[in-house]
Amino acid sequence: MNVGIVNVTGYAGSELARILYRHPDARIVSVTGRSEAGKRLGEVFPHLAPLDLTIEKEVGASVDVVFSALPHKSSAEACAPFLKQGVKVVDISADFRLKDLAEYEQWYSVQHPCPQYLEEAVYGLTELHKPEIARARLVANPGCYPTSAVLALAPAVKHGLIYPEAIIDSKSGVSGAGRALSMSAHFSEVNENVMAYSVGGHRHLPEITQEWRALDQGSQPKVTFLTHLIPMTRGILSSCYAPLKDGALPPGKKGVEELQALYRDFYKAEPFARVVSAPPMTKHTLGNNDCVVFPTVDLRTGRLLVISCLDNLVKGAAGQAVQNMNVMFGLPETAGLEQLAIYP
Amino acid sequence: MNVGIVNVTGYAGSELARILYRHPDARIVSVTGRSEAGKRLGEVFPHLAPLDLTIEKEVGASVDVVFSALPHKSSAEACAPFLKQGVKVVDISADFRLKDLAEYEQWYSVQHPCPQYLEEAVYGLTELHKPEIARARLVANPGCYPTSAVLALAPAVKHGLIYPEAIIDSKSGVSGAGRALSMSAHFSEVNENVMAYSVGGHRHLPEITQEWRALDQGSQPKVTFLTHLIPMTRGILSSCYAPLKDGALPPGKKGVEELQALYRDFYKAEPFARVVSAPPMTKHTLGNNDCVVFPTVDLRTGRLLVISCLDNLVKGAAGQAVQNMNVMFGLPETAGLEQLAIYP
Amino acid sequence: MNVGIVNVTGYAGSELARILYRHPDARIVSVTGRSEAGKRLGEVFPHLAPLDLTIEKEVGASVDVVFSALPHKSSAEACAPFLKQGVKVVDISADFRLKDLAEYEQWYSVQHPCPQYLEEAVYGLTELHKPEIARARLVANPGCYPTSAVLALAPAVKHGLIYPEAIIDSKSGVSGAGRALSMSAHFSEVNENVMAYSVGGHRHLPEITQEWRALDQGSQPKVTFLTHLIPMTRGILSSCYAPLKDGALPPGKKGVEELQALYRDFYKAEPFARVVSAPPMTKHTLGNNDCVVFPTVDLRTGRLLVISCLDNLVKGAAGQAVQNMNVMFGLPETAGLEQLAIYP
Amino acid sequence: MNVGIVNVTGYAGSELARILYRHPDARIVSVTGRSEAGKRLGEVFPHLAPLDLTIEKEVGASVDVVFSALPHKSSAEACAPFLKQGVKVVDISADFRLKDLAEYEQWYSVQHPCPQYLEEAVYGLTELHKPEIARARLVANPGCYPTSAVLALAPAVKHGLIYPEAIIDSKSGVSGAGRALSMSAHFSEVNENVMAYSVGGHRHLPEITQEWRALDQGSQPKVTFLTHLIPMTRGILSSCYAPLKDGALPPGKKGVEELQALYRDFYKAEPFARVVSAPPMTKHTLGNNDCVVFPTVDLRTGRLLVISCLDNLVKGAAGQAVQNMNVMFGLPETAGLEQLAIYP
Repeated sequence: MNVGIVNVTGYAGSELARILYRHPDARIVSVTGRSEAGKRLGEVFPHLAPLDLTIEKEVGASVDVVFSALPHKSSAEACAPFLKQGVKVVDISADFRLKDLAEYEQWYSVQHPCPQYLEEAVYGLTELHKPEIARARLVANPGCYPTSAVLALAPAVKHGLIYPEAIIDSKSGVSGAGRALSMSAHFSEVNENVMAYSVGGHRHLPEITQEWRALDQGSQPKVTFLTHLIPMTRGILSSCYAPLKDGALPPGKKGVEELQALYRDFYKAEPFARVVSAPPMTKHTLGNNDCVVFPTVDLRTGRLLVISCLDNLVKGAAGQAVQNMNVMFGLPETAGLEQLAIYP
Repeated sequence: MNVGIVNVTGYAGSELARILYRHPDARIVSVTGRSEAGKRLGEVFPHLAPLDLTIEKEVGASVDVVFSALPHKSSAEACAPFLKQGVKVVDISADFRLKDLAEYEQWYSVQHPCPQYLEEAVYGLTELHKPEIARARLVANPGCYPTSAVLALAPAVKHGLIYPEAIIDSKSGVSGAGRALSMSAHFSEVNENVMAYSVGGHRHLPEITQEWRALDQGSQPKVTFLTHLIPMTRGILSSCYAPLKDGALPPGKKGVEELQALYRDFYKAEPFARVVSAPPMTKHTLGNNDCVVFPTVDLRTGRLLVISCLDNLVKGAAGQAVQNMNVMFGLPETAGLEQLAIYP
Repeated sequence: MNVGIVNVTGYAGSELARILYRHPDARIVSVTGRSEAGKRLGEVFPHLAPLDLTIEKEVGASVDVVFSALPHKSSAEACAPFLKQGVKVVDISADFRLKDLAEYEQWYSVQHPCPQYLEEAVYGLTELHKPEIARARLVANPGCYPTSAVLALAPAVKHGLIYPEAIIDSKSGVSGAGRALSMSAHFSEVNENVMAYSVGGHRHLPEITQEWRALDQGSQPKVTFLTHLIPMTRGILSSCYAPLKDGALPPGKKGVEELQALYRDFYKAEPFARVVSAPPMTKHTLGNNDCVVFPTVDLRTGRLLVISCLDNLVKGAAGQAVQNMNVMFGLPETAGLEQLAIYP
Repeated sequence: MNVGIVNVTGYAGSELARILYRHPDARIVSVTGRSEAGKRLGEVFPHLAPLDLTIEKEVGASVDVVFSALPHKSSAEACAPFLKQGVKVVDISADFRLKDLAEYEQWYSVQHPCPQYLEEAVYGLTELHKPEIARARLVANPGCYPTSAVLALAPAVKHGLIYPEAIIDSKSGVSGAGRALSMSAHFSEVNENVMAYSVGGHRHLPEITQEWRALDQGSQPKVTFLTHLIPMTRGILSSCYAPLKDGALPPGKKGVEELQALYRDFYKAEPFARVVSAPPMTKHTLGNNDCVVFPTVDLRTGRLLVISCLDNLVKGAAGQAVQNMNVMFGLPETAGLEQLAIYP
């Protein structure tokens, strides 16, 4: 299967290249990146030298599937021609994630370049939409935060354990901000520091509520979502708090056990949603495609507490994109994604 | 004024020495530390060599005030003789913080060695208890987390803006775990990692609820308090979420402005509780005694959101201890604490 | 091929497990670790849960090859029985690296438990000793520092470009210190800090000079080797300085080009010794088995300068051990080691 | 004494403001910064809010001394008018450091805007040039690297202990690269990474050789100087290697003791050059003005080894600038610089 990567020069793009290098059924035949076009891939990213590719301006070979790792708007523009040619597309940008055009245009402050594809696009949170992904020709790969938050809450929402409200407090490594230079990714500003950002509202919020509403038709979830930047490169950990409905679970430890059993059951067929019974850490996901989910109850207050974590560039971006490609092409879902975490 | 430091060899103790070195009215005359007794202070901590002191087994000089930076239980045991001699004491351990003996013994799993001092001990959150501290001979210096959380919520609680419930999501640097070796402070385990810990309940929770009840007599606050370890040395940032009462604030931005004005007014006489109108970061508190508080409203959900931060070893420990000493002795509250943050 | 790992609970041992998980021809059948014996591997190291193994006290299955990741002395003791049974052994400890028993006992301050194996043991710097490794039943896996330093200098020494003296200034991440707790690996002590250590002489020095003498028979190299600890988890970068012989290279840039060509030629058949023409960084080796070597000349002083880097747990330990196993068993040298670096 | 800071918005400029805030005899009356002119200083740097200043385009008040923290060339241009008005100047840029105009123009690739001041400018390595600094009206504050390297080698050079050659291997935190955005200061690129840079020659080299020649008239020192970037914010550690002359020191430990005594004697009157007898670490200089120097001998090879460290923004920039101001104005050399290091 021939693969193209549009914008290999960002972190999601280079991570795609790294992962696909060991994919048994995929062969990267073209990688693009405007500012670096003409250079050898190994010149820009020495660790990718074994891929033996030259960065092009446009995808210059026939491909079966293309990944776009461009920023929003440019990404949709770049995807459209492939869709017209019948090439399958996994878009890592936000362009096709939100079904509501107005919501998209409000959060991203741009006009959507090709809203005609919104309806057919499938939101690529693989664990929740596998059948649609299997039939899709356009998959909108989810944001890194929503992947962690939605996988953390989906079983509880689906089973009606909680009222439609939650507080999601997420902590992210700095690579989530990408490779573009900014003061908020400048080493001396970020190192030995923690801060909340996008306090007025993070663009990933509407993805979370859209998925919640899909899981619980007719609900209007009141979600407070706050993101924090912490001094590490990769990893997201989300601590999610929600009010348990009275009687949703037995009291005490028994309730916790039942909750964890319910979560394990919900994800029992999912190779990358790993339910655990002790608080997880991002280090155990470094470089792999797991989203680790730890559900429990704050017994003093009767609140649901779910802690989830993942590698924002793998399950939060390139890894899930490959997982989606696998599903789209009927390949084993784990193909190319068997790597264990790098620890320590 | 002659000062003694019991257990100078931990992080709180050595930080006390650093701060007091520049205090205009205090002179450190004795520092203790069992395992290192007999050594020069500069041998154990080269940066403290200018203090020109030898570590002793017991406080060997006459002192006007003693700081204890021992672990709980040993600390109370070490403080008792000084109290008997009429020496004023600032205890940095948890031993005298909780008024309810049973609660203390349950959270700390020890028998209190001298509960007879609990009643007179004053909880040393300086901004909230200054008059009592001024008269106290025993001050229980607050925990680092409660300092950040209580200062974040006190104005809202006191003014009845919120229902008696809150979620407090705190992120801490590793120095909070102290200088004792443990796997959870081992560099390769903590670096490039984030995790929640003490998920079943952190010992600092009862301090928070005790202070809440003091601010809002008769309330039974439902507080979920979750602590996270992040890969930096110093700093705590707490994100606090609470439901605003209907009509507590005007809708929209006007409500936010009113809230911030109310907070500024609450702390207007406090040199170290700094209310700001943009999200703060721990870096701006590195090495200084500030607790920076940013109150706002999540307008989509009507929740109060307060983000606060501080240096866990300064305002969260040694700095507040010196602030309390200043108040106890009628000195200017800021004496010895004028240092600006080290940035970047 | 059945593999056993002795002491899987350290960093080298767990890294072996991670790498071998994807090895096409090796199957881990037994892992040991005294303090954690009886536990599931995934309980101690959640990222290794997919290996589905229980930690044992002793290797409890029939194996074709055993890796020992024990500390020195215990390692030799643990290897001896396997050698007697005809099982091939890769020892990651220092026990069989030095040919000179007295030198070993002086540097390690212990009596060697089985010096009878010293003669047949092959020093497993794969790039320099492949033929002997292919025939060996006992391979002494090199230290992390010597791997970087010897690969940096070997071509120059072999080709007689330099006088027999060098200064090797190495910088290492903290995981090199292992998983045992110590103040010098305590997060708050190591983070935001750099220091030299083992200034009086690091145990890896005699490996370096032993290999130098093997490359240049009769020489008595004067090597100053200084190690530094820097605040990162993985990675070693060695900056090596040596006096070029007069006329060894043409003057100016032409000499640099000739030098780099000579290095490339020296390692042309080596998949993991990668000669580059721009200064390398450890990040490009994170998690992979490369040793990247950048040779150049300080044109102002006529000194040879070679900068090399690697991941101390992969090429510096577990990866090279697997590379050696591959060679010992006639497998493709790169089997199981194809992973690209994790970047960023 | 009224002080102006030109370009307060970089790291050296903001550090000057931090330090001078506690200086007993200096009052900052004006701070400039083009891009941020008009803003309150506390808006740009919240930790400097207590200074209560507005950033101006030009120094708008009468000053006794001005510090320039502009980049080279712009700095000299900004200093000239003050010099004409008789205002004393401490220039933190490189513009007045090199006596040889051609050397300056070659290394910095610009034309010097006012070479007429080169002759009178005094190189402000305080420990070596105090009498000239006391009489100077223009002090060229040294580079951060040369401060560490020259203080490390000066006693040995002055006493004729070594041949005129050295290898200086320096490791620096990222703040040395300043506040301007660049890929080499982008968090995700620098974190968990170490690399050498400016391998072809760092601009600070000619300062080192200029000072060496001043200490040893007629010598032509062959210095290899290599700089490395390590993942921390502040701090430089330099490991300096040089060949001891035969008989310069007694053999063995006695030689080391004599060497350390000689160093201690050399710096006996210097409050900020601290000679120690154990390997130092940058952490013990964080935020203070010390340069810690550890001289020893590699007894196996007879090489001098001196390890020195400092905080690149304090003794390596703003702190030494204030030290120089103190000397220029006849104030106590330590005024405003009494702060102990922030540890841990």
